[in-house]
Amino acid sequence: MSQPATFLARLREVVGMPHVLTDPGDMALYLTDWRGRYTGRAQAVALPANTAEVAAVVRLCMEARVPIVPQGGNTGLVGGGTPDGSGTALVLCLKRLRTMRAVDAANNTLTAEAGCLLVEVQAAATAADRLFPLSLAAEGSCTIGGNLATNAGGVQVLRYGNARELCLGVEVVLPSGEVWNGLRGLRKDNTGPDLKHLFIGSEGTLGLITAAVLKLFPRPTASATAWLTLADPQAAVDLLGAAQGRFGSRVTACELLSRPVLDLVFKHFPAQRDPLPGNAPWSLLLELSDGGDDGALRDVLGEFLAARLESGAVLDATIAASSEQARRLWALRETAPEAEKREGISIKHDVAVPVSRVPEFLARAAASLPQAFPGARILAFGHVGDGNLHYNVCHSNAADNPALLARQAEVNRHVYDLVAELNGSISAEHGIGQLKRDQLPRYKPALELALLRQFKRQLDPLGLMNPGKLFPDPRDA
Amino acid sequence: MSQPATFLARLREVVGMPHVLTDPGDMALYLTDWRGRYTGRAQAVALPANTAEVAAVVRLCMEARVPIVPQGGNTGLVGGGTPDGSGTALVLCLKRLRTMRAVDAANNTLTAEAGCLLVEVQAAATAADRLFPLSLAAEGSCTIGGNLATNAGGVQVLRYGNARELCLGVEVVLPSGEVWNGLRGLRKDNTGPDLKHLFIGSEGTLGLITAAVLKLFPRPTASATAWLTLADPQAAVDLLGAAQGRFGSRVTACELLSRPVLDLVFKHFPAQRDPLPGNAPWSLLLELSDGGDDGALRDVLGEFLAARLESGAVLDATIAASSEQARRLWALRETAPEAEKREGISIKHDVAVPVSRVPEFLARAAASLPQAFPGARILAFGHVGDGNLHYNVCHSNAADNPALLARQAEVNRHVYDLVAELNGSISAEHGIGQLKRDQLPRYKPALELALLRQFKRQLDPLGLMNPGKLFPDPRDA
Repeated sequence: MSQPATFLARLREVVGMPHVLTDPGDMALYLTDWRGRYTGRAQAVALPANTAEVAAVVRLCMEARVPIVPQGGNTGLVGGGTPDGSGTALVLCLKRLRTMRAVDAANNTLTAEAGCLLVEVQAAATAADRLFPLSLAAEGSCTIGGNLATNAGGVQVLRYGNARELCLGVEVVLPSGEVWNGLRGLRKDNTGPDLKHLFIGSEGTLGLITAAVLKLFPRPTASATAWLTLADPQAAVDLLGAAQGRFGSRVTACELLSRPVLDLVFKHFPAQRDPLPGNAPWSLLLELSDGGDDGALRDVLGEFLAARLESGAVLDATIAASSEQARRLWALRETAPEAEKREGISIKHDVAVPVSRVPEFLARAAASLPQAFPGARILAFGHVGDGNLHYNVCHSNAADNPALLARQAEVNRHVYDLVAELNGSISAEHGIGQLKRDQLPRYKPALELALLRQFKRQLDPLGLMNPGKLFPDPRDA
Repeated sequence: MSQPATFLARLREVVGMPHVLTDPGDMALYLTDWRGRYTGRAQAVALPANTAEVAAVVRLCMEARVPIVPQGGNTGLVGGGTPDGSGTALVLCLKRLRTMRAVDAANNTLTAEAGCLLVEVQAAATAADRLFPLSLAAEGSCTIGGNLATNAGGVQVLRYGNARELCLGVEVVLPSGEVWNGLRGLRKDNTGPDLKHLFIGSEGTLGLITAAVLKLFPRPTASATAWLTLADPQAAVDLLGAAQGRFGSRVTACELLSRPVLDLVFKHFPAQRDPLPGNAPWSLLLELSDGGDDGALRDVLGEFLAARLESGAVLDATIAASSEQARRLWALRETAPEAEKREGISIKHDVAVPVSRVPEFLARAAASLPQAFPGARILAFGHVGDGNLHYNVCHSNAADNPALLARQAEVNRHVYDLVAELNGSISAEHGIGQLKRDQLPRYKPALELALLRQFKRQLDPLGLMNPGKLFPDPRDA
């Protein structure tokens, strides 16, 4: 049982009085996720300053049987950082672990503490004439520790991989309060299984990542951005294959938008213009990045696209002639989520299927959803190069939307069952958290979940690490 | 206790009479590693045909308490696939699991069973106009299951990563005999920790990988290969950084050779010629790969090197004008191990340090080794782009070599202690097996080893999965 008075007093001794928040007003920011979808309660919010303090807080919580809810920038989309309503938890916020411990340009690595903001990591890389390619909408407020705990994705995964693939080593405070120093910066280390992958993507349920060695890359000096129209998603998959065949990993973005999504962008952002005429059913943003200069890269992209225009594989295409024009093309993609939001609430899905099955998924879902849910309007866009689609569903008449939203669980199951049939994932980049926890047993092999539960019990026998997240409720098991 | 008669009879029922070998002559090939360094005994060798049979064999072994030694192509360098001398073990060879289950060019994936040879996987990728980039000397006889169990490296890790990074999903027979189907072919799947990494690189101690989904890549159509001479290793690290800055991931190989190594190549392979005059202390093989054609790639590489010749960063350089010339440059690198072998036995080290610390490692080891071991001659070459050096030591007088070899343990410790001081790895790509098992506790954090042991006990409570490999003897723990 928790003994609040003693526990809080000892907590204040460890992290210092000003860094233990108990006033409801002070705590509020930490108890609700940024979209306001989840709200919880906590006995306190602790903000330790370094790894040793984190370890001491964890030991204290274990002794006092206080559940720990780890938090970074609190920008997650699945309620992974919000405590439950019991008020027993401690929110353990890592934002004060903010030291950039090392930048090693010749090794293409950077060692950052968990609380460093993603933009700060990007800036430290840039200052060393390198690129840290993780990039996502919340980069100004999310932390690298949160990015790793949730294995964040974003717009450059096609070329550089997600957070998991950008990490060479980690420092982890285990639920026992012990600190594992796995901060290796090696491209090759064949001394057994790679344990960091158990903690990356664990959403704070198995341990707390307090620092990490991250991969850096050469900073591209040139880019070429094209906007194309296509007859169907198969043409997008084919074009991606051809572009990768010609340009290899210089293909750094391949983003697909359906006509209904683009129409919403023009409706809610009247300043945006369609770069190409013809109201084609599908549009694609394709970007190359390289060393060298923009002109040469635009030339080879132009040659590549000209051949495909001639063959009819591409309906129409334009290449940005300046970085300002490129920025405007990107704005079409980047305003899509906000345009959808302004149109009204929709049922969202962040799913992935093998790239080769994107066309089948889109065709089958477009046929079956309106049949099962009459009037359903589908808004599909996303990182087609990763097989990752943001697949959102609302009613074509705003007035009927509440009735559709009331059937959200059925819509989810309809979409996820098709994703599963195509060997896909019900969470491509946002994670599980509270949002998808109870759906996991339907889609993850039972044996894999059983293995995860075994590791969880072994590492965290008291079940105090971010309870209620990721792992389906033990009572449902 | 094992009951051989019953056990063998049941084993024959499961995999069929012809696929259980007990005759010493039939078993011999499986009981000694290919270099003849390790020999063991076994009660039988079983060759199951598919995953279900593997699972049945594992269950049988667990019931009968028979240790299992998994084996692929038996090409390992650390004794990981050789049983001990007790004769109690079953060698479980996966060579008959040879189905190429699927090739999905549009998804850039291939699903192969564990017993497929690496060359067969490469060929299946080529047939689909794709590249499977894992490439190493044993590729004609090693299996993809063995490559994954040992996280194999090779000459293209710089660009494409090692076996771990080339794998998207696995099918694993657990020590319980249960089969985990983790055969996902997704670039994004954020539904929890990624358990495949526990089995990849576990050397068969935690489970048996029976099939895998592998990443494919566009097949480069152009390459440009240069041979350079350099004043010192720092010049090599600087050049690599500059080349990656200009060419990004088109830099696919960066291999360093010291003058003593090159001299041995010329001594034992008189047909080989030095591509450049001047007997420079260090030589570097640099290769670019790309779509497009060879000529254009050679031109940009030529421009890049011309500027560095002018500045003095590079002493001399030549670019292969044909694929035949490129092949001859590669032959200098590829014959280095054989040239060393012909010169006599040496004490070998397969180590890695951060790329930025390669110069420091080479300088300090070159200074301290001959001091500690008078007459020591150092033969260093390797994948400098990964920080991975093959760092071999022998005596400069052949007659005194036996005396140096007698001090192998001291030489190892000297080299490994320096590697550890520089945050390196004592096994960059060859693994641990029997060879380095007892050195692991000195160089791997105790807490990491303790975690590994916990997972081992949980997955394999009877300790029957490849006992004596990777994990330091429990009595030493």
